[in-house]
Amino acid sequence: MTRTVLESKSKTVVIGFDEPFCVIGERINPTGRKKLAAELEAGEFSTVEKDALQQVACGAMVLDVNAGVVYNSNPDPNVTEPPLMAKMIELVQGLVDVPLCIDSSVPGALERGLEVAEGRPLLNSVTGEEDRLESILPLVKKYNVPVVAISNDDTGISEDPDVRFAVAKKIVERAADFGIPAHDIVVDPLVMPVGAMATAGRQVFTLVNKLRSELGVNTTCGASNISFGLPHRHGINAAFLPMAIGAGMTSAIMNPVRPVEMEAIRAANFLMDHDANGAEWIKFSRVLDAVNEGTPFAEASQQSAAAGGGRGGREGRRRRRA
Amino acid sequence: MTRTVLESKSKTVVIGFDEPFCVIGERINPTGRKKLAAELEAGEFSTVEKDALQQVACGAMVLDVNAGVVYNSNPDPNVTEPPLMAKMIELVQGLVDVPLCIDSSVPGALERGLEVAEGRPLLNSVTGEEDRLESILPLVKKYNVPVVAISNDDTGISEDPDVRFAVAKKIVERAADFGIPAHDIVVDPLVMPVGAMATAGRQVFTLVNKLRSELGVNTTCGASNISFGLPHRHGINAAFLPMAIGAGMTSAIMNPVRPVEMEAIRAANFLMDHDANGAEWIKFSRVLDAVNEGTPFAEASQQSAAAGGGRGGREGRRRRRA
Repeated sequence: MTRTVLESKSKTVVIGFDEPFCVIGERINPTGRKKLAAELEAGEFSTVEKDALQQVACGAMVLDVNAGVVYNSNPDPNVTEPPLMAKMIELVQGLVDVPLCIDSSVPGALERGLEVAEGRPLLNSVTGEEDRLESILPLVKKYNVPVVAISNDDTGISEDPDVRFAVAKKIVERAADFGIPAHDIVVDPLVMPVGAMATAGRQVFTLVNKLRSELGVNTTCGASNISFGLPHRHGINAAFLPMAIGAGMTSAIMNPVRPVEMEAIRAANFLMDHDANGAEWIKFSRVLDAVNEGTPFAEASQQSAAAGGGRGGREGRRRRRA
Repeated sequence: MTRTVLESKSKTVVIGFDEPFCVIGERINPTGRKKLAAELEAGEFSTVEKDALQQVACGAMVLDVNAGVVYNSNPDPNVTEPPLMAKMIELVQGLVDVPLCIDSSVPGALERGLEVAEGRPLLNSVTGEEDRLESILPLVKKYNVPVVAISNDDTGISEDPDVRFAVAKKIVERAADFGIPAHDIVVDPLVMPVGAMATAGRQVFTLVNKLRSELGVNTTCGASNISFGLPHRHGINAAFLPMAIGAGMTSAIMNPVRPVEMEAIRAANFLMDHDANGAEWIKFSRVLDAVNEGTPFAEASQQSAAAGGGRGGREGRRRRRA
């Protein structure tokens, strides 16, 4: 069975066919978050700290860290992004003990991240584009880390799933030339919005199954893209994730501070026999109880984590005294 | 592609691999509903009427009708159930124009139901028990109707999915001896509670796939059994249904007056490319809007149905004037 091993300073997370679904928290990313971008340029990291703690409390097993700010003071990311990446990684791994996913389109930022990250991070990402293959795969080999492989190439993103499969296969083969094993490639088959392409869901389910059976690789995706532009999109996401998990998807880069999606994933883990005795489900159901009573999800999750996963503790006792 | 054709007085519903998931409303059943049982013995049918209208408004495409009351005045269901079944079917089909699922363990009640039902109802059910095969299959043949086949036999319900598959295969083969085609058998592979059997979910997903590919049959289940005994069971159901649909399940006997489960099914239909342009999802999202504003789901669904599926209408205009 394919196992992609990630490590933090002291913890191991395995992405694998026989493992609970791996939730990679996407929040630490200034793309599309103007306020966070401005904070980062100003050397202000309180949002990063909050996002790190909240995401882990809500169930993220890995945290993506993206330092892709275009500074107003210096528009060259090759200069600004590597030191910011190093700073953010050091900050995050000082706060939480989970493996990181080093996310950048700037090779220098990826390498700087690899230099400072503790344990065995996931590199995000390589594509089938020639220049990316030639610049990223040597890093993957040098640092002996797993890598996210996105199924587009120099011709762009194909709407044809067979082409996306062929791109993934090319990346796996090229990686093998570098001595990188298939179990260290986590393929993103690319999720299209179902509102724009009616076959988008079925494409992913078929592709995931094929990537797993024919290439033996783990898979990931930007899950929320499936519901782009639709009303009640959390309902679409919350059906998509269990269906993708049933088809064999083993991880997603997503926002874990969302109770609907996290409930769907935890239920799917239970139904895939990846939650012994339903212990995680039962723990999570107490968080849902608190949410139903009006506590925000992140807060309820943090209280549960602080109390040792809802097995009682200081928080509970203090309330009873009041 | 396997198509099981059901008919009401004027409407056709197809259970099939390329069709939206078929929701069979389970509410019209006195089993475990003491108040309803007492009403039925007293000749009072207002709950049946309400359940028929609500379930169809909420999205039931077929209504199960079960007359299994043990009368205090006469404990022999062979005497009491056939006339009650006829009465209930006549009542329901006078109110709503959807195919019925005639549900009884009393052969006389099934036959009486077949006599009075309009169109082409679904018979519920035959098992692999010898006496059931010999009493029910001739009815299926005589009335040319499809039948639910439950995967237990004279040895009971096996926990081994291979045995349950073998029972289903035996029923399909025995039906063929009677001249009943496989596309008129809807197999219930039996859903165990995942809280009691950790492999319960995976068993169903594997079985559904195998029943479909090897026997070419449609499938159904009592979906809520998966979450029996667990906290937040609607969350388990709402992940189970999309996963079962992704695995190839084509119908379920369930309570459609539950927004969480119906949302999961409608999202799964969209993701399976069984909802052209997301029209049904968008219509349903307006019902969810009303639910979020505090309207009970059944009421919101009935208002939407009355207004032509949320495309505006009298209700909307009247509100604006107030």
